[in-house]
Amino acid sequence: MNKINLKEKFELIDQYWDPKIIGEVNDMHVKLAKINGEFEYHKHLEDDELFFIVEGKLTMKYRNSEEVLKKGELVIVPKGVEHKPVAEEETLIMLFESKQTVNTGDKETQLTKRNLKWI
Amino acid sequence: MNKINLKEKFELIDQYWDPKIIGEVNDMHVKLAKINGEFEYHKHLEDDELFFIVEGKLTMKYRNSEEVLKKGELVIVPKGVEHKPVAEEETLIMLFESKQTVNTGDKETQLTKRNLKWI
Repeated sequence: MNKINLKEKFELIDQYWDPKIIGEVNDMHVKLAKINGEFEYHKHLEDDELFFIVEGKLTMKYRNSEEVLKKGELVIVPKGVEHKPVAEEETLIMLFESKQTVNTGDKETQLTKRNLKWI
Repeated sequence: MNKINLKEKFELIDQYWDPKIIGEVNDMHVKLAKINGEFEYHKHLEDDELFFIVEGKLTMKYRNSEEVLKKGELVIVPKGVEHKPVAEEETLIMLFESKQTVNTGDKETQLTKRNLKWI
């Protein structure tokens, strides 16, 4: 066992919207990402997805609503629900999701990231 | 979807070593616990367990080593590994673990908590 310090790990990330893996818990991955700006609407057909705000502010848009998450808040987006993360400033998030989850869900776009690296 | 504010949820917990459920992600639960003092050695035969420190300080003891975790740090204890959480002061933690995970692992003791409540 080696403890993981989130601040130290975030210093290793230099691109926005480029999640990195920091751990595994059973068949789930723990990931960190720096985000800034708008992502795109997508959904994960088979997997729920947890977003925890470590620093900054995240607006999670849904097709008919939205909610603003601040540091120390989390949201779990159930499988099948379309969502679009938006950050008006640099925001640091921790994700908890199935190992099979792809960041753009059921769509393959220029934002899709596969074969994520461990940091 | 409703965002979850950790600070607000912790205000609903009035007992140490009494984890509460705040969310589910696939077959995993997200739990919060207030801890203070010594727990007991135990292991989870089939499940990894993630501890994230929200406030305070946690010493995780293993049979041949230990590590001290501070706010913003996490550790994932792999299945089968004996561990004993110790907090010298009131400490607030978030846990990610399988829905089947019991706090005292493969031992039934006076510290065992079953049928955890949602908050």
